[in-house]
Order: sequence, then structure tokens, then C-alpha cells
Amino acid sequence: MFNDATVDEINVVMDKAWKAFHLYRKFSLKQRADFMLAIAAELAACGDDLIFIVMKETNLPEARLRGERTRTIFQLTSYAAACEDGTWLDARIDTADPGKTPPKPDLRKMLVPLGPVVVFGASNFPFAYSTAGGDTACAFAAGCPVIIKAHPAHAETSEIVAGAILRAAKKCNMPDGIFAHVHGASVETGKSLVMHQHTKAVGFTGSFSGGKQLFDWGNQRKEPIPVFAEMGSVNPVFLLPEKLKQSAAEIAKIYAASVTLGVGQFCTNPGLIIGIESDELQIFIAALGEEIKHNAPATMLHPGIAKAFAEKREKALTQKDVITVAVSESESKENQGIPTIASASGQAFINNPLLHQEVFGPYSIVIRCKDMNEMIEVSKNLEGQLTATLIASENDIRNNDELVEAVKNICGRFILNNVPTGVEVCLSMHHGGPYPATTDSRFTSVGADGIKRFARPICFQNWGNDLLPQELKNENAINIWRTINTELTKNSIQ
Amino acid sequence: MFNDATVDEINVVMDKAWKAFHLYRKFSLKQRADFMLAIAAELAACGDDLIFIVMKETNLPEARLRGERTRTIFQLTSYAAACEDGTWLDARIDTADPGKTPPKPDLRKMLVPLGPVVVFGASNFPFAYSTAGGDTACAFAAGCPVIIKAHPAHAETSEIVAGAILRAAKKCNMPDGIFAHVHGASVETGKSLVMHQHTKAVGFTGSFSGGKQLFDWGNQRKEPIPVFAEMGSVNPVFLLPEKLKQSAAEIAKIYAASVTLGVGQFCTNPGLIIGIESDELQIFIAALGEEIKHNAPATMLHPGIAKAFAEKREKALTQKDVITVAVSESESKENQGIPTIASASGQAFINNPLLHQEVFGPYSIVIRCKDMNEMIEVSKNLEGQLTATLIASENDIRNNDELVEAVKNICGRFILNNVPTGVEVCLSMHHGGPYPATTDSRFTSVGADGIKRFARPICFQNWGNDLLPQELKNENAINIWRTINTELTKNSIQ
Repeated sequence: MFNDATVDEINVVMDKAWKAFHLYRKFSLKQRADFMLAIAAELAACGDDLIFIVMKETNLPEARLRGERTRTIFQLTSYAAACEDGTWLDARIDTADPGKTPPKPDLRKMLVPLGPVVVFGASNFPFAYSTAGGDTACAFAAGCPVIIKAHPAHAETSEIVAGAILRAAKKCNMPDGIFAHVHGASVETGKSLVMHQHTKAVGFTGSFSGGKQLFDWGNQRKEPIPVFAEMGSVNPVFLLPEKLKQSAAEIAKIYAASVTLGVGQFCTNPGLIIGIESDELQIFIAALGEEIKHNAPATMLHPGIAKAFAEKREKALTQKDVITVAVSESESKENQGIPTIASASGQAFINNPLLHQEVFGPYSIVIRCKDMNEMIEVSKNLEGQLTATLIASENDIRNNDELVEAVKNICGRFILNNVPTGVEVCLSMHHGGPYPATTDSRFTSVGADGIKRFARPICFQNWGNDLLPQELKNENAINIWRTINTELTKNSIQ
Repeated sequence: MFNDATVDEINVVMDKAWKAFHLYRKFSLKQRADFMLAIAAELAACGDDLIFIVMKETNLPEARLRGERTRTIFQLTSYAAACEDGTWLDARIDTADPGKTPPKPDLRKMLVPLGPVVVFGASNFPFAYSTAGGDTACAFAAGCPVIIKAHPAHAETSEIVAGAILRAAKKCNMPDGIFAHVHGASVETGKSLVMHQHTKAVGFTGSFSGGKQLFDWGNQRKEPIPVFAEMGSVNPVFLLPEKLKQSAAEIAKIYAASVTLGVGQFCTNPGLIIGIESDELQIFIAALGEEIKHNAPATMLHPGIAKAFAEKREKALTQKDVITVAVSESESKENQGIPTIASASGQAFINNPLLHQEVFGPYSIVIRCKDMNEMIEVSKNLEGQLTATLIASENDIRNNDELVEAVKNICGRFILNNVPTGVEVCLSMHHGGPYPATTDSRFTSVGADGIKRFARPICFQNWGNDLLPQELKNENAINIWRTINTELTKNSIQ
């Protein structure tokens, strides 16, 4: 059991972070990358003991947690490589032209860090989106100190991972205050952290209500700050007619696995499947239901999430015109999520906004549209989503341009004949999407492009080569990509 | 005299823009660029008649307005070139790896437009930051329709430039609704535009109170949207001791010209000059005052701005411990800005937040610090700025790292031995800065990087080459820079 940080404690932590910021932001890309690699090594060195503690705190299975730690280490090492590569700095140089009227000065621009970043640990990713997770890695790469608000559901895990970061910081001679770990189950702790004058950005993965609250606080400050909240979505899946005709049962099987993966506790869980009334759709629904019946309930992350799932599931199933298609036939214990498939007509869905909301857990609703026009209408009634999926043949795509364009317009990742669960860590990933999936559709929380969330450009005008930062000097000794007089190049300037 | 648009009229305009968006966003980069070039040509073709109308509406001199139109045409043509070049799309491709566990899908990411953009005309740039100005050019390049809210102080100018855009749209077969022009002197018109569900971003250049209001509305919407407000700043100039010793009088002369340029009506006007008590500082102040005395008052943009200048100047000059150093000795007429230099001690400045505020017009205050420590304290008391300038020798820079770092941390453009007025239009320019200079320090409103304000990434997962957008297809027929499997290249994919 850990105590919530007091306001005085938070002030001390933030003052230290502010001092550390002024030192750390002058560290080279290589020094930042080495620090991140050291964190990765310390995290790996925590060994099996850590895995067993996380299992106890989160109810997640061992294999999943081993995989998630490996993923977290990959995030740290691959973002470290991206940090050192320096392309993310968006270095641009326009050399002087004294002959122009008026004379054109030498101008050189690059990204610099925003300042201390507060990261809220996510309950569903105790490693990958918590203490040493993606937001932390991106902030360190950008040149920002990090203050973690531990998720109370895995506070001990968070404490151990924080220890690993602090050991890495010591080994790499990082300034005191580069990283801090704060506990807090109360709303007040979170609010104090977001509202503190030295906080310059916030990273969050979790519920809509939590993320929206942080976003509002961030905007209500005397100096508003960016709050990057990834708040989940229902991740609609559209079953197009030709493809469904070809393989209804096969798709149902794949989707049953996706709906129940990790007890449905992923932000990319497919919570909404939309088809057009037909024999094939009936085959799909029956096959999906059959799979779900044989899928066993499992314990959810913590009692709060299990309770919320039970309530939201119950509320969804008792809405007018909603049919319960299938429920797991295995017995369920306390705090377990019961795999469930519901169904409703297109009109029922359009008329009832409650059916658009996420039921976080192993639940999905199949919407039966009367025709393609109704499917388009459904798509136009959807809010912003992290992902949207088309299950479609090439003909389906070519013949339904209006639907394809409408769906493309609401999502951050647009998937064809695949499942939304499974978020690859790479530069081309976009894990974000229009509001309310996130608070800022222009940034990703997975992949090294996430570094840019915590940086802003600065332009140096008329500085001599000797006084410029390394990244902008004529000689380009660190060999980064730069745009010089509109040409992208690694060349030096003669 | 033009009537404010009614709510019904705004609904019609926004519905058309929304329809146009779904067509325009599929237009190729070349089609967008051609449209922008056509606007530039139409703007040039408006000829001298337009210049004379703008002179009448804004009181700005002919040469300045001819220059500003040329700049606006350059913005349109250079952003068109950047649009077509496609580097701004941040295209990233990671090819599939079916052998990986789990199999890695093909992932391809690029920027897509946000949707209709509302742009508020700026009173101080009737061409460059109004109807066909930088925000409009960036939005069209990004693939967004534009709705202009004309600035009431140059409504006729705006009407004529809007006509040029509409003629270009017709010539280029743009969809109906790609551009709309709305009048509105009332707060209600602006609010209706920002709050409309089809508005997806806002561009604004103007006062802090105006920009902050738009920002708050944008965040209070059911679906919050980005509001890019550039709200000006005092643009501090730090006079470092060695450099000041070398050339106090010369610097004073250059700065007198910068303070009074365009009757001080630039967001980058140097409103705050900070030195250390010394004989040289006295020489600087005396020389600056002498120049200002001989600088004639001139008519400001409109009576509202002249009134605000007179009031804020009066208020600043009557603050405790503020000395009036020099005032123009020429007679002034109604609505003219009177060139003025004031002075105060470092402590007086630190203790009185009112002295930190912008007095928009030909006014500047010189702060006399007792030593370098007080100068550092002043720098740490400043809010975010568009620009900050050091007047410094190489020794000054090397010996005063704490000051240099503190100043760097609060500005968007960091200038050495130059004046902040004069904002070059090029890729390396950053016209932005930490709040309250702008509402989002991560984006610029000058230079082609401003295009990114109006776009967001989308990732295509598992799409066949035939179905992908042109920009992400294997063959790279349009020859753009893309990052393929972490390598930046123009190569096609075999």
C-alpha cells in the first residue's frame, strides 16, 4: 500500500524536474539514446520476480506479460535509435542571402524539448504504457524529464520499474530530477500534477472520462499545455457483401479471437461489427456466437474494470431492440469478464447513442443494416476512432467509394481484411485518431513519431556556426538528415 | 458596408464546405498546387485598383502594400511547390514480415487533411495574413476547404481578394464550397463559425484576448478542434555588456527603425529592451530617444487600434517608477500612433506584470537591470514570446550560458545581432512560440511547415498496392521522399 503524494511532495518533485530539464535538454542525442538503452537493460535485468508480481497485480497471464516486457524493451531501444538518428528533429536550414532586398538572414530550425512531462500509467499495459512505457521513452528521447503517476492497480510493479529507471539514470550520470515516481489513487494527485506550472505536457492512456478531465485541466491552466490522451474507441468493423459471401464463417472465427483477446482489454478491441442483412450475415453471427459460447470468462485487470464491464454490458444488453446473440457457457467467477455478443438493427443503432459507446472488455455488438445506404448512414454517425476495419474484396472497395471515404475520415488506422488488435511498434504505425479516440488526432502514442509530441521548433536567426547547436552546424558532424535551401540532404554546408 | 452573416447563412456555407471537403481531399498534390498558383495569378491580376482600396481601408503606405502583395503571392507559389513536393506528407512505409510472430502486416502512413478550416483575417496584414494569406494557402495545400471571416477593418479588400480566389476556383474546376467568404463585425459570427460541427480547425492572427476566446471555444466544443492563434508578444531584446560597449549608438539607431516600422504594428515589434546599468546603456537610451523624437507619428490601421494604443501607452507611462524617455516631437493627428520610449528598473519590471504586456504600436520600454543576475531574473519572469533577441559578442554568449538558455526556453525564434521585425517566408522560419505568444508552440504560421497544422496521420494496414493512395504505392510515381523500413528514400519498392 502506497500513500498519495502530497501537494508539497509534488512541488519538490516538479522543482527538481524543472532544474533537471535545463541540464538534460543540452544532452546530445547519443547521451539520451544511451540512457534509454540503459533503462531497457535494467528492465530486462529485473528478471522473473517482476513478472510474478505483475501477474499478481494485473491478473494477466505470464506469456502475455513476458511479451509485453519484450515489447517495452523494443520500444526503448527502437525509439533510442530513432532519437539518435535525428530525422525527427526536422532540421531545416536556409542560408543567408545578403544581396536580397531586404537582406535574407541565415535561418536554422530544429525541434527542442517542451519541458517536464507527466505520464499517467495505464492499467491495461503495466509495462508498455506505464512507468517505462511508450510515453516515457518518447519524452526522454525528446529531451524532457518524466514524472510518472503510478496506476494504483499495479503500484508495486510501477515502483519496481521506477527503480530500474533510477538505476539507469545513476549509471548514465543523469541530472537529479530527470525522473520521478509518484503514487496517487485520488483525483487530487492527478490534478496537482497537471496544473503544476512546471508541467509542460501530459501523456495518458485510459478511459474517456479520465482523459477528458486531464485535457480540460490542461486547457484551463494559466498557461495551457498539450494533453495527449488516448481514450480508446469501439473500432468499427465493416463487413462488405462480396467478401462476407466468400468467407463468413472464417471471418467469424478470426473475430471471435480478436474480441476476446486479453479479456477484451485493448483500446483496439473490435466492439462494433456492421453488416448488411443477408444469409451470410446470419451465418457470420451464428458462427461468431458459437465461438463466443465456448470462450471461457477470465479475470479482468482489477475489480473496478470488472464492475464497469458488468454494468456497461448489462446496460447495453437491456436497450430497446438489442438482442443477446451469445454468452460464454462456462461458469464465471467474481471479477471475470463474460464473453458476450449482442446484435441490433441499423436503425436501432443510429437512434441510440448509448450503443456507440465502448464496453471495455470481451463484448461486441453486430449491427444489421438493411442495405448499403444504411451502412453508410451508420458510418456517418460514428465518432472518431483509433481504428476502423473493412472486411472487403477488391470489388467491394471499388463499388463502395462513399462508404470507404466516410470510414477513412473517422479513423487513425484503416485496416483491410485484418483485425485491429495487435499494434505493431514501428514508424509507420499511427496509434491515435480523431476525437474522442484521442485529444489530438495529429499525434501518435505508438512508434517513434510519438517523440514529436514533446517537442517544439525553434529558429536560430543570424547565429555564427560556432555558436549553433551541433545539429545545425555547417559540418553536420552527427550526420543527420536536414533540409538545406529546400533540399533534403545529409550534406554539410561549404 | 457589409452585413454580418446570419446563423442560417453560416450553416449553408459550412454544409457546402463539408461536401467540398470530401471531394477536394482526393485531389492530387499537383491539382492543389495548380489551384494555389491560379489564386496567385488572380491576385496579381487585380492590379493597382486593389492597392488603392487597401490603402484607403488600412492607412498603410503604397510601397508596403505592394510589397505585402508580392509576399502573399510568394507564399502561395512557394507553399504550392512545397505541397507538390510532398515531403510534408511524412510518408512512412513498413513492409510486411509474415515470418514474424505474430506476423507483421504491411503498414503505410501519410498525412490527410482535417476538414474545413475557418480563417480570421488579420487587421495588420490585409494580404499576407488575411483572405488569401498564409493560413489559407496552408489549408488549401493540406487539402482543406477554407472559410474566411473578413476583418471588418478591410472588408472591401477582403471582398475583392475573395473574388480572386473564387475565379481561380472556377478556372481550376474546384468543387462548389471549396472557399467561402463571410463578413461579421460581431463576436457572434466568429463564435458560430468556430462552434460549427463541420469546422475542423481555426487559424487566427491578432490580439491575445481575441485568440484566447477562439481557443476556449475550440476546446469547449463537443468535439474539440485545434485553434492556431498567433497572439503577438513583446519580443524582448537583451543588450549584453561587451557588445553594448562596442556599439551602443549604432544599435540604438537600428532599433529605433525596428520599433517604429509600420507604426509599430507588427507582432514581432521589439517592445521590450533589457540592458545592464552602465554608461553604455545611458548612451544607448539617449541615442534611441533622440531617434524617436525625430520619428513622426503616423495613422494606425483603424480607430480601434489607435484607441487601444493610446490607452495602453498612457497606462504604461503612468505606472510607478516608469520614466518617459522620449516622445516624437512632431505634431500628431487623430488615430495616429506617437513613437514613444519609456524606461524602468529591473525590479520595477519584475514587480509589475503590466509592464510585461504588449502595447501594440510604436512603443518600447528599456529595462535597466542592476547586474547580470537581475537580467537573468527578468528573463525568467517573461512569458512565451514569438521572438527573443540577443545583442551580444561571442564572449557575451559564452560567458552567460544561464541567460542564453533561459531566453532560448521562452521563444520561437532566437535572434542574434539582428532585429525581430521582418519575417522571412521560408521552410526554416518558425513564426510561433510558447503560450501566450501562440496557443500551440509546436506549429508555425509562416513557412510551408504551417501546412501540417491542418493535417493528421492515417495508417493503412494490409491494403493491396492497387488500392493504396498514389503517395503510398510501391512505385512512387510522384517521386516523393518516404521513410521505407526506417530508411529515408525516394526509391520505389520492388
